[in-house]
Amino acid sequence: MTHSDTLDLSLELLRQPSVTPVDHNCQTIMADRLSKIGFNIENMRFDDVDNLWARRGTQSPVFCFAGHTDVVPTGNLDAWNSDPFLPEIRDGKLYGRGSADMKTALAAMVVASERFVNKYPDHKGSIAFLITSDEEGPSINGTVKVVETLEARNEKMTWCLVGEPSSTKVLGDVIKNGRRGSLNGVLKVQGQQGHVAYPHLAKNPIHEASQVITELCETVWDHGNEYFPATTFQISNIHAGTGATNVIPGTLEVTFNFRYSTEVTADILKSRVLEILDKHHLNYTIDWTLSGLPFLTPVGELVNAARDAIHETTGVETELSTSGGTSDGRFIAPTGAQVLELGVLNATIHQIDEHVNVAELEPLAEIYEKILIKLLA
Amino acid sequence: MTHSDTLDLSLELLRQPSVTPVDHNCQTIMADRLSKIGFNIENMRFDDVDNLWARRGTQSPVFCFAGHTDVVPTGNLDAWNSDPFLPEIRDGKLYGRGSADMKTALAAMVVASERFVNKYPDHKGSIAFLITSDEEGPSINGTVKVVETLEARNEKMTWCLVGEPSSTKVLGDVIKNGRRGSLNGVLKVQGQQGHVAYPHLAKNPIHEASQVITELCETVWDHGNEYFPATTFQISNIHAGTGATNVIPGTLEVTFNFRYSTEVTADILKSRVLEILDKHHLNYTIDWTLSGLPFLTPVGELVNAARDAIHETTGVETELSTSGGTSDGRFIAPTGAQVLELGVLNATIHQIDEHVNVAELEPLAEIYEKILIKLLA
Repeated sequence: MTHSDTLDLSLELLRQPSVTPVDHNCQTIMADRLSKIGFNIENMRFDDVDNLWARRGTQSPVFCFAGHTDVVPTGNLDAWNSDPFLPEIRDGKLYGRGSADMKTALAAMVVASERFVNKYPDHKGSIAFLITSDEEGPSINGTVKVVETLEARNEKMTWCLVGEPSSTKVLGDVIKNGRRGSLNGVLKVQGQQGHVAYPHLAKNPIHEASQVITELCETVWDHGNEYFPATTFQISNIHAGTGATNVIPGTLEVTFNFRYSTEVTADILKSRVLEILDKHHLNYTIDWTLSGLPFLTPVGELVNAARDAIHETTGVETELSTSGGTSDGRFIAPTGAQVLELGVLNATIHQIDEHVNVAELEPLAEIYEKILIKLLA
Repeated sequence: MTHSDTLDLSLELLRQPSVTPVDHNCQTIMADRLSKIGFNIENMRFDDVDNLWARRGTQSPVFCFAGHTDVVPTGNLDAWNSDPFLPEIRDGKLYGRGSADMKTALAAMVVASERFVNKYPDHKGSIAFLITSDEEGPSINGTVKVVETLEARNEKMTWCLVGEPSSTKVLGDVIKNGRRGSLNGVLKVQGQQGHVAYPHLAKNPIHEASQVITELCETVWDHGNEYFPATTFQISNIHAGTGATNVIPGTLEVTFNFRYSTEVTADILKSRVLEILDKHHLNYTIDWTLSGLPFLTPVGELVNAARDAIHETTGVETELSTSGGTSDGRFIAPTGAQVLELGVLNATIHQIDEHVNVAELEPLAEIYEKILIKLLA
């Protein structure tokens, strides 16, 4: 069997055990290929994270492929049917950690760029690659730092295609044209510890907070909009008590998360939470962490180019979605770039025996190339 | 300074490091004294717990002194101002682990019995001692086993005085003529684990249970009665969550305790809780532990004898109370005995530098003796 260009490069990347934040040579492999077709290469290492900024051309508009070389840990090795870092093809499926998330997309981006540059060596604007080795980790020294560096020198992206696995049933059936915001809160309710036999001498923070928790769970924060589902509130952790059955605990800790639409803001959510807490006269502290602003790329040049490229290649009608977890798109969108995510099927990401259909790889490269043609030819 | 009989015996008992379940000779010291005044001695050892059943006389009515020789651990030895097992008198206070809870009361019981028997060698009925070394521990092989043994041979107590430290400000100001019941529940609510970004694919057990918790906290279970305060419900522990902020937990565990009056029963409380759980269609399991039935000794011979003896000895008007934690009285009351608790001040029990006023010891022995006189002379 003759391997396609995209499969060959995928295999090479999948052989690198690049668990976050280790890049393990992946970016060098990519940069060597891009350098040969005229990309200017910048390695931006921040702390223990490798980042690559590669650009062909100096003019606007700038089309950027974004992604990550790092992968999540393998989990129990014995549970894998083949070594997660010795990629193997079985029954038309390519197995390996990172096969879906997202080394095959990286390979498709490089191959698409090579083919495009060969056909259109004097293309409009610029093609760029923004690649990090810390997307699956704390995301502190990765994309966000590269974006800061670019912003500081006023280097802008016009369009950014993140190669995250966005497809659900067939290649290209879903692209993400935005993401909800993510706001975390840690609520500590102060009571007064005591003995369960003497509740009048204590103040049970669980009892004090119970109405508040019910109200937070039942509140309708918004109804979403054309692009976003309604904002959701979820408590991820709740803890109080020493383990003893006869002690009223002194404190209660509740950790919660909002995934929110563009119909509200983080500040609006915070003030509405505080209003509920104060109405019930709780003695509390609260710490907020904004882990991602919502972003949205309305239908326009980039979305249309992607939809058309998918339809021409696969015949699939693409659905726009803003659901799911966060991605590095949240760091790029605030610069004003149009951002969307388009990649292979996400059914097995982060799982044992992660895999992708080999038959999706060349069509993905073809879709990426067609998008380049539509925007920069 | 010449030590009183009660102080001397207290010192001897306090020198024994009898941390639960170790008796460390205390019961032998007591039995030797009681044997000399005609008590029949039975040592009932169950597993690692020493118990003493001593009785003078074979007739009814039976007046029983009940108590325990074991003490709680010392805690940080460096924090004590004197060795907890080398009792020391400073400023009129006797310091040592067990000085308040409850070796001085054991000494007063023995001394009171000696004096009473000397004056009334042919007293009515019987005097008995039911002493264990496992009151502060699991309470499995202590009083409850002795009571079972006595019940099996149809040996009954008419009156039982437990020497627990019942006094709050001055000796004899409070006696406990009952205790609330104690019912523990462990509620496990089953949800469906998931990612906070996809709440529609998960079922958050915290959210599912929040209304139930509020309703349990707000329910009025009863209004108490002449002897008992209203039944209380307290959650002692609540736990859910893996620590991760982006995971909806799969299960929630809530531990709670009822302290309940004689206006309800454990079965009534259980069925009312289940009714609330089922009304909200929770998927749950619940484990119940009944750690003590409520008991009550209404005003009658024993209560009146104790009140009068206190008033004649100290001038104090005694208040009846059923508040506070459980005691071994819960095991004795179900046999039909009148049970009350009367002992020294409880301000420092279980604490560092536990102590008792030396000036309380002889009056306590005198009160105990007067009770014997009123009931058995």
